Amino acid sequence: MKPRNPLVTLTTDFGLADGYVGTMKGVILGIAPETCLVDITHQIAPQDVRRAAFVLYSAYPFFPPHTVHLVVVDPGVGSARRAVALRTLAGTFVAPDNGVLTYVLAREPIEALVELAEPRYRLSEISHTFHGRDVFAPAAAYLARGVPVTSLGPPVSDPVTFPLPRLEVGPGVVTGEVLYSDHFGNAITSIGRLVWDGEELALKPALVKMGSGGAEEQRSEVVRFRASEAVVTVAGREIVGVRHTYAEVAPGEALALVGSHGHLEIAVRDGSAMHRLELQNGMPLTLRFGSLARV
Amino acid sequence: MKPRNPLVTLTTDFGLADGYVGTMKGVILGIAPETCLVDITHQIAPQDVRRAAFVLYSAYPFFPPHTVHLVVVDPGVGSARRAVALRTLAGTFVAPDNGVLTYVLAREPIEALVELAEPRYRLSEISHTFHGRDVFAPAAAYLARGVPVTSLGPPVSDPVTFPLPRLEVGPGVVTGEVLYSDHFGNAITSIGRLVWDGEELALKPALVKMGSGGAEEQRSEVVRFRASEAVVTVAGREIVGVRHTYAEVAPGEALALVGSHGHLEIAVRDGSAMHRLELQNGMPLTLRFGSLARV
Amino acid sequence: MKPRNPLVTLTTDFGLADGYVGTMKGVILGIAPETCLVDITHQIAPQDVRRAAFVLYSAYPFFPPHTVHLVVVDPGVGSARRAVALRTLAGTFVAPDNGVLTYVLAREPIEALVELAEPRYRLSEISHTFHGRDVFAPAAAYLARGVPVTSLGPPVSDPVTFPLPRLEVGPGVVTGEVLYSDHFGNAITSIGRLVWDGEELALKPALVKMGSGGAEEQRSEVVRFRASEAVVTVAGREIVGVRHTYAEVAPGEALALVGSHGHLEIAVRDGSAMHRLELQNGMPLTLRFGSLARV
Repeated sequence: MKPRNPLVTLTTDFGLADGYVGTMKGVILGIAPETCLVDITHQIAPQDVRRAAFVLYSAYPFFPPHTVHLVVVDPGVGSARRAVALRTLAGTFVAPDNGVLTYVLAREPIEALVELAEPRYRLSEISHTFHGRDVFAPAAAYLARGVPVTSLGPPVSDPVTFPLPRLEVGPGVVTGEVLYSDHFGNAITSIGRLVWDGEELALKPALVKMGSGGAEEQRSEVVRFRASEAVVTVAGREIVGVRHTYAEVAPGEALALVGSHGHLEIAVRDGSAMHRLELQNGMPLTLRFGSLARV
Repeated sequence: MKPRNPLVTLTTDFGLADGYVGTMKGVILGIAPETCLVDITHQIAPQDVRRAAFVLYSAYPFFPPHTVHLVVVDPGVGSARRAVALRTLAGTFVAPDNGVLTYVLAREPIEALVELAEPRYRLSEISHTFHGRDVFAPAAAYLARGVPVTSLGPPVSDPVTFPLPRLEVGPGVVTGEVLYSDHFGNAITSIGRLVWDGEELALKPALVKMGSGGAEEQRSEVVRFRASEAVVTVAGREIVGVRHTYAEVAPGEALALVGSHGHLEIAVRDGSAMHRLELQNGMPLTLRFGSLARV
Repeated sequence: MKPRNPLVTLTTDFGLADGYVGTMKGVILGIAPETCLVDITHQIAPQDVRRAAFVLYSAYPFFPPHTVHLVVVDPGVGSARRAVALRTLAGTFVAPDNGVLTYVLAREPIEALVELAEPRYRLSEISHTFHGRDVFAPAAAYLARGVPVTSLGPPVSDPVTFPLPRLEVGPGVVTGEVLYSDHFGNAITSIGRLVWDGEELALKPALVKMGSGGAEEQRSEVVRFRASEAVVTVAGREIVGVRHTYAEVAPGEALALVGSHGHLEIAVRDGSAMHRLELQNGMPLTLRFGSLARV
């Protein structure tokens, strides 16, 4: 059987104007020449670890499980922060140990988590300022070639994570926050994942601390409500109903809907909700619903 | 004989800052792992279907005919607009049926045109807001793998198109419009394609409605003139002569030339014509020439 | 033995909004379908040949030597400027002969340098404005497929180069200039390459004219000093010590360090040195050090 092609994705804050991303790709292709390279994004705001974490969270589930996801948003380069590789059933991740894998760790049970310490899987000369090139890219390339994660260094038991976004479920109300704003100005919130069942929506929290039962336990439904009767309050504005899609309202009108990430999203049809509704990342919002529709 | 590699291009308005483009690529590589992916652009202004149509028009003829061109500029996502696949001798196209294929349809006879309706060639779960991921990317991947276009759904006989840009040929004058402004600030016009024959130029209209004779009939020459004697009038300014290249005028000087798209182009050497001449998309322009040079 | 995959990198000033880059890739894949394409950058400021030269300089050494580096920053397209291909032991380069290969020529002995004159390795129809598509991309594709450089045209003995950046070594002082500003606002200078040896730094000039002994001769050490005692003066400000990495100073503080390019770099931790210190490309700077530390 023909072996699958190595597949490596890249997520960085390097921008596209310099040679940094290209340089990392050169290193990878020097080690694993058959690798298919896919850019997730290189336009993370410099050192915005949380934004990178969300972009990774939105993209990795759609890649084959043999994919190696290389993430280099690394404000602590050259400091004592660790470099790690994480293997899960949904993919392998290579990143600085600075919280950028927080959302992956919230969703996927750990198969292996190691520190990138083995010199043979780095470049021979290590700079102090560009571990993306000298440490992370080689590690990703060797992993893509089939080197086991556990060969790259000793196990890590205490990965760095940042606090998960706000998601509180009370009687008739869910409280969350604006988590991410996309290119279109849509505001993706921490209220997710929402799953349609006819005219009702079930909330199966995704970005919450995993209990002993692992991810599956956490993804069980905690609340259910009728979409058309729900009321979203954000930035002093009330939006009635959770919609399926943008086209259900008139151009320029605000709406709440279940976005492609499965999270509650605030949008303005053919416009920017972030701008028009004056939203900001971290802003709280509530989703209220009548008692009748609850299970 | 070794089969050719699947080849898929991507043209979207998703920008590069989010995970949307990467997610689509993950879906494609999950279905067709050997695919070579080429970005045309992801920087179409949000929902600017006409701009996307032109970028596609400028790029697709330079790809091998087995290429699948995936275009997702989709203001109507989630509405009743159809999703389609179009096979021509020059390539296969996957897009929303919103006019984005207008220029392809003006140039290439239809081999097959179908609606993307067959569930087995979509993701199993379809969101209402990201058909690029759930409908278009899988369709492109299956087509790239060799699934026939006609397997993807029922035939479509009435694709949506928008009006073709202005191009009127009168005695001694051709009237057109500014069609597209590029990264350098060059203004590409609807007057094309212009083909050099010594010092003369022949106009072989490209973006016009195909008659019963098909594309070839339409591309026959309708007018011929001496390039150096032609006068272009745009935004209240006259430019004498149609040049071969930017270097024929001094830096900072305006010129008319035959651009790389084969269309009349207004440029400023080492500068932006759009800015310096205060041009805008849709602005009319005329190309006048003496009767002596006409056939 | 399985032959290596063709590998082509692209560096242009085309931006990412138009179809120009995609078009070049279509041409390459039509000629060499197995090619792995890697973007270095397409965001060189329009016609900024020096910036392109530096980006190329920073990236090419990290690619396998069979890589073909395609560079199209070409203000003189359509003029009499030559198109060239350069083979070195570190890679093959295809570019306009306008100085963009200056830094490669300063570092790598020439194995072959030819003008792209052979019609069979161009597209059959050559525009006057887009040689990237019609001349450079086909040349790169044929080279990637294994066509020898010397088949592409006659030898060139006098390639165009621009003056190398300032780098003067006096008693206790090295004078250089700000050479490049990156996405993070770091200022990379012409003082390089600096190589760590314990607490000392050795300067092995990289961007200087090669003598008869070739690159190796030039890269020998010309000065050595204790890093912590060196004083950098730039834009009226003194920075004491050359550091290993950003994390050695407090956020917001300016520092001098050896950047990932091996050149002296001026940075502000978690900020932009270009902006905060009001630096500009071409600005002079000095590196002073005590006599004790010199060899």
